[in-house]
Amino acid sequence: MKVAVSRLEHFNAAHRLHNPEWSDERNQIVFGKCNNPNFHGHNYDLIVTVTGEPDPETGYVIDMKVLSDVIREKVIAAFDHKNLNLDTAYFKTLNPTAENIAVVVWRILRQHIDTKFDLRVRLYETERNFVDYPAH
Amino acid sequence: MKVAVSRLEHFNAAHRLHNPEWSDERNQIVFGKCNNPNFHGHNYDLIVTVTGEPDPETGYVIDMKVLSDVIREKVIAAFDHKNLNLDTAYFKTLNPTAENIAVVVWRILRQHIDTKFDLRVRLYETERNFVDYPAH
Amino acid sequence: MKVAVSRLEHFNAAHRLHNPEWSDERNQIVFGKCNNPNFHGHNYDLIVTVTGEPDPETGYVIDMKVLSDVIREKVIAAFDHKNLNLDTAYFKTLNPTAENIAVVVWRILRQHIDTKFDLRVRLYETERNFVDYPAH
Amino acid sequence: MKVAVSRLEHFNAAHRLHNPEWSDERNQIVFGKCNNPNFHGHNYDLIVTVTGEPDPETGYVIDMKVLSDVIREKVIAAFDHKNLNLDTAYFKTLNPTAENIAVVVWRILRQHIDTKFDLRVRLYETERNFVDYPAH
Amino acid sequence: MKVAVSRLEHFNAAHRLHNPEWSDERNQIVFGKCNNPNFHGHNYDLIVTVTGEPDPETGYVIDMKVLSDVIREKVIAAFDHKNLNLDTAYFKTLNPTAENIAVVVWRILRQHIDTKFDLRVRLYETERNFVDYPAH
Amino acid sequence: MKVAVSRLEHFNAAHRLHNPEWSDERNQIVFGKCNNPNFHGHNYDLIVTVTGEPDPETGYVIDMKVLSDVIREKVIAAFDHKNLNLDTAYFKTLNPTAENIAVVVWRILRQHIDTKFDLRVRLYETERNFVDYPAH
Repeated sequence: MKVAVSRLEHFNAAHRLHNPEWSDERNQIVFGKCNNPNFHGHNYDLIVTVTGEPDPETGYVIDMKVLSDVIREKVIAAFDHKNLNLDTAYFKTLNPTAENIAVVVWRILRQHIDTKFDLRVRLYETERNFVDYPAH
Repeated sequence: MKVAVSRLEHFNAAHRLHNPEWSDERNQIVFGKCNNPNFHGHNYDLIVTVTGEPDPETGYVIDMKVLSDVIREKVIAAFDHKNLNLDTAYFKTLNPTAENIAVVVWRILRQHIDTKFDLRVRLYETERNFVDYPAH
Repeated sequence: MKVAVSRLEHFNAAHRLHNPEWSDERNQIVFGKCNNPNFHGHNYDLIVTVTGEPDPETGYVIDMKVLSDVIREKVIAAFDHKNLNLDTAYFKTLNPTAENIAVVVWRILRQHIDTKFDLRVRLYETERNFVDYPAH
Repeated sequence: MKVAVSRLEHFNAAHRLHNPEWSDERNQIVFGKCNNPNFHGHNYDLIVTVTGEPDPETGYVIDMKVLSDVIREKVIAAFDHKNLNLDTAYFKTLNPTAENIAVVVWRILRQHIDTKFDLRVRLYETERNFVDYPAH
Repeated sequence: MKVAVSRLEHFNAAHRLHNPEWSDERNQIVFGKCNNPNFHGHNYDLIVTVTGEPDPETGYVIDMKVLSDVIREKVIAAFDHKNLNLDTAYFKTLNPTAENIAVVVWRILRQHIDTKFDLRVRLYETERNFVDYPAH
Repeated sequence: MKVAVSRLEHFNAAHRLHNPEWSDERNQIVFGKCNNPNFHGHNYDLIVTVTGEPDPETGYVIDMKVLSDVIREKVIAAFDHKNLNLDTAYFKTLNPTAENIAVVVWRILRQHIDTKFDLRVRLYETERNFVDYPAH
């Protein structure tokens, strides 16, 4: 009787898409306006989904307040009001696409969520662009 | 060629999270402000998903109007503008967490949706907290 | 050059519409299912709008963080996860309709927002029902 | 390490639900007001999900701009501000239910998205009615 | 102490923008794809705002259930799942732009809402296009 | 018979709040995490409202397509995927608070919208923070 529990959190960040091994011209062709050297930014919506059996004593799979606190301490504190390329260790050499941010967030959270639970993340870069990791 | 058809319905209810086998102190520690003895409440959004083959004559998996009527008669009529703990039989002894409400709603609807269809429910307690049952 | 600055905050509460000077029958006729003696509840969205001249040094009419803190300390702390009828002094004798809640919120905040600013509140009881005070 | 990438696009269209092999009376009974001979219409929201491995050089599963362009050229150009029954070849004999529109959209897009990727579509007919194809 | 009370209702309709006194060419130039002779359609969101003093006995400016019933009987019943140009008397000769629909809705409702109240309507044709009548 | 017509457009940008005449310490105290020297960013939603009489021949106050084109050419092209502080002339010395961005957008558009129309802008920096200029 597994239930999936989801919590939405939010962060605002600047970023730039860029592959340092490519020429400026190729970066411009591939990443277009997302390659702007002065950065641009987004309001990111992050949904974290934890799946498991509800505890019979509490009726909770996981306390959403606890889940929210973990996300805020481990992810939001690191990413909110930051420049993803310059201010975080994760994207010094990894391109901060929505895909890569989602994988990084999942890896961070996986260390702090009990392994008896499945874990998934959805990241909205805009209302029109979002990614899920791992994919179903 | 299975298609999943989803219908959103809505109810407003009061509830309180509480385990009667625990002390007041332990209830307060575990459930925090959700344990308020005078209750609090939510606008719940309920999405019911029915999966099956579209009927070649109608192009419907299930008529959404029929699905909406079943949800309203069997779930919304029982829960809307009610106190989940006091006014419904389901939560006399079961804690009305989002997880447990979703499982109860699924069990109610499963009796009224043809067994040839898969059935899932998603319940939003707030825009930031939601659950899915059964989990994928 | 006046600019209006708005901040959205949120609270979840139980309430009941009831006029103690009326018979139960009349209360039932006028307030219908909102008169449920065991209460029901809502996710309330509150938008507070402060209007004034931006400060030339900061570019702020009012720091939204400061505005958010005032709303949380003076309104959300009093109403969130509460029973409006039983747990707050404001609605012991005043019916907690959306209209009356908006007026009460405005009066609370008016004491804490500099009088050089205009002040308005919008309260969403549901996505489909909302009120503004004062009206334009 | 598969990631699912989703893009939301939009079209406005008129349609009518009708089975030409049935009597007018039966059409009216089955399809109700959706059978109106003069049509009605919707703002359709279409979410297209492509699943695969992110390219290590770009960090993209698929460039969302490229995905958006494919959807706009192959689907939106054909359906937006159109009468689905009269102006498109797809629904001359196929009833334009949400289920059938989703399957048609999937078949169109499947021809233009690399077969190394999984493909899914979600179609919102209204905020309260939506379908997914293929179902999980 | 005036409060504005707003209620959201919804209808789905087909329409076409066309001026019968103009040539087809001029209609095409001015109205573009909205001039499609076979119509297109929208999910319209209608917000009706009634402004007045809350009744001291009820705490209501107007009972939102009563307001909802008036909108549904007088507007939604006439427009929902209809072709605005062909199925309603209002737009036989009047072009069903969002502006004109809003004015027509206001005139219909003005006859059924007590004149002691101010009345305004907002009409969303899409999430990105909406109109208010009367303008502030 | 004035109608207000509104159009929503969107841009993503990086920015930093900073007063160059202040010490770093004072900037940090006043602007907090919004003062991050490496910038952060937002998905800005911009609503532009034009008020006037509908043209009797078209039923339009202003063609929303024309309005959308003006906003895109004059505002979105200048701000989207840009660093507001570094990439635009407007915020070289003006702090890019939501208030100041709204005033700048209004001044840009006022030059391109017929003076017979009233003009207002609303800018959402996040779902929870937005501003209106001019204020009612």
